Amino acid sequence: MTAPIYLGVVGVGGVGTAFLNQLARLPNAPQLILLARSTQTLLAPTPAYSPAIPAADWKTAVDTPALTKKGALSADEIASYLAAAPGRAILVDNTSDPQLAGQYPVFLRQGISIVTPNKKGFSSDLALWKEIFAAAAQGNALVYHESTVGAGLPVLSTLRDLVATGDEVTRIEGVFSGTLSFLFNTFAPVGGAGGGKWSEVVAQAKELGYTEPDLRDDLNGMDVARKLTILARIAGLDVQAPDAFPIESLIPAELAGLPASADGVAQFMARLPEFDGQMAEIKERAEKAGKVVRYVGSVDVATKEVRVGLQQFNKDSAIAGLKGSDNIISFYTRRYGSNPLIVQGAGAGGDVTAMGVTADLIKVMQRLH
Amino acid sequence: MTAPIYLGVVGVGGVGTAFLNQLARLPNAPQLILLARSTQTLLAPTPAYSPAIPAADWKTAVDTPALTKKGALSADEIASYLAAAPGRAILVDNTSDPQLAGQYPVFLRQGISIVTPNKKGFSSDLALWKEIFAAAAQGNALVYHESTVGAGLPVLSTLRDLVATGDEVTRIEGVFSGTLSFLFNTFAPVGGAGGGKWSEVVAQAKELGYTEPDLRDDLNGMDVARKLTILARIAGLDVQAPDAFPIESLIPAELAGLPASADGVAQFMARLPEFDGQMAEIKERAEKAGKVVRYVGSVDVATKEVRVGLQQFNKDSAIAGLKGSDNIISFYTRRYGSNPLIVQGAGAGGDVTAMGVTADLIKVMQRLH
Repeated sequence: MTAPIYLGVVGVGGVGTAFLNQLARLPNAPQLILLARSTQTLLAPTPAYSPAIPAADWKTAVDTPALTKKGALSADEIASYLAAAPGRAILVDNTSDPQLAGQYPVFLRQGISIVTPNKKGFSSDLALWKEIFAAAAQGNALVYHESTVGAGLPVLSTLRDLVATGDEVTRIEGVFSGTLSFLFNTFAPVGGAGGGKWSEVVAQAKELGYTEPDLRDDLNGMDVARKLTILARIAGLDVQAPDAFPIESLIPAELAGLPASADGVAQFMARLPEFDGQMAEIKERAEKAGKVVRYVGSVDVATKEVRVGLQQFNKDSAIAGLKGSDNIISFYTRRYGSNPLIVQGAGAGGDVTAMGVTADLIKVMQRLH
Repeated sequence: MTAPIYLGVVGVGGVGTAFLNQLARLPNAPQLILLARSTQTLLAPTPAYSPAIPAADWKTAVDTPALTKKGALSADEIASYLAAAPGRAILVDNTSDPQLAGQYPVFLRQGISIVTPNKKGFSSDLALWKEIFAAAAQGNALVYHESTVGAGLPVLSTLRDLVATGDEVTRIEGVFSGTLSFLFNTFAPVGGAGGGKWSEVVAQAKELGYTEPDLRDDLNGMDVARKLTILARIAGLDVQAPDAFPIESLIPAELAGLPASADGVAQFMARLPEFDGQMAEIKERAEKAGKVVRYVGSVDVATKEVRVGLQQFNKDSAIAGLKGSDNIISFYTRRYGSNPLIVQGAGAGGDVTAMGVTADLIKVMQRLH
């Protein structure tokens, strides 16, 4: 009864694979007509855009003679292919590629909606942010990116609801990195004792797979800064770039010059114990004030201040009580008064990130009919 | 460019008034063509359905000769009027009227979407719940009722996203009543000492305006039971009625027979101190176990168990740490693992309840175009 909706998916990493598994189980799923990985693109043949790619069996679908196989396509080529489909089209970008994100306006202007957990398009230069939403309006297309902050947690949808209904968001504060959450919940637990040395906790997080391949990408605070940039912009602040505000890096200045290679990571880990004393001091200073230290991001809407770094919190606060690698996001608003609206839970991981993408996809499909 | 959407609003109490204020400030607001209070209905004149009622000045609009004034209309009459409007129509029910809720299928079958904080339609007999969603499908209309649980907090939208994307919700647990949250956070604070006698805390809540006019409507647990019924049904359980599971009432059996009048309330308050000893015992029993007592609701999806009543919680749990009259809702799911997805904040009050209604209205408008 309703016209079919056509779907292109780029990226088959952790999130991409989890997303395809969820897509395969979706009732009334859209027609998957393009699946691109770094070196290969699988397509439903033109001009019929049929048969579709079976999401459940995408790994073996490459051997299906009925489907078209190509090498890597440019964003322009993908956009042209999707725009010519016989119905509304959606691009799901499951990469973290800044190049592809920079091309979102090309898709949107041609009426192709975007659903993505890729932070790059929304947290880089302000000009790109503005161009994305202008292109969406121009192309009558939609942009949903819930999973760019807090993975599947209802963070952006909640903030957008607050803003759209006329509430005044005064402050947003929280722990936005699963890795940094784990590091500080372990290093400086509310109970006080235990915790171990900083370098040991970092090594443990690395062994448990809680960090990026190069764990300095977690410790430098840039991932958190990108999330704060997105939140601040939705709250109405014109943040020029993700480094346009103070970001406290947990990479000691003395180690900042190490190469961005596997060897650089090894050297970094080997020298990190030299700085255990510094981190112990930070922890003890908080202890003496009856508090704990946590790595947080905050947006103060009235003063237009965005900052990312270490801060002390009362032991009975929600941020101090966080467990494992959970995220927590507190929205202070005029309507909610002194007690904030809080969202808390796992803010990283393939399945929950993909859940945010799938939920967005469902909403976009509902709006496109 | 898009066809106008027509809006009928019933109820101008606390939530209704707050909603109309939010509606008045909404960009691209729908045309308000019907505003009904208990004894009077204001309408945009037929057949033009124009001029619309000014949401900002609805109190004085009754004196506008250009608008039609009538007495109370039946649900059938309201539905006929809205269905004949020259575009898609939405009914916002800001009452808590079970009669009107029972008529939702009449509206939905005629293509009129429903947005409401009224719990009655979704928490009464299972047959009505099923009829509502069948009628919506039949009439190609939408039903949004976020504010029926946790007011403007993103509770139902989150649960629906979890279910729709294929997560397996195993357990839902939380504090669902602002009144009961305040009573137990005050009576049995995590700090232990203080708190005062149960009857004093109840009297304090009444004086602060935190209770229903007849505070026994809070203490009997039925409001919480209705919310649990809604959550359990969205999670997939066929709960027959809001009293089809164990509900622990905080009204002592000896006082259950008091009349449902203002005099009954006065007698209840006068005799409540007789039961302070019982409540102190419950509190002390928890203390001895190193815990605190809270009034919670829970849905165990696997065992299909729904229950509402007192339960002990560890002092470092999120439920124990709740402040003021906040609600907290924890979703335990397969994807989220041992740490639940948590939503927390004010779960009552005109402004935040209306915010949930307005946010739903925006979503319905986006889907209707």
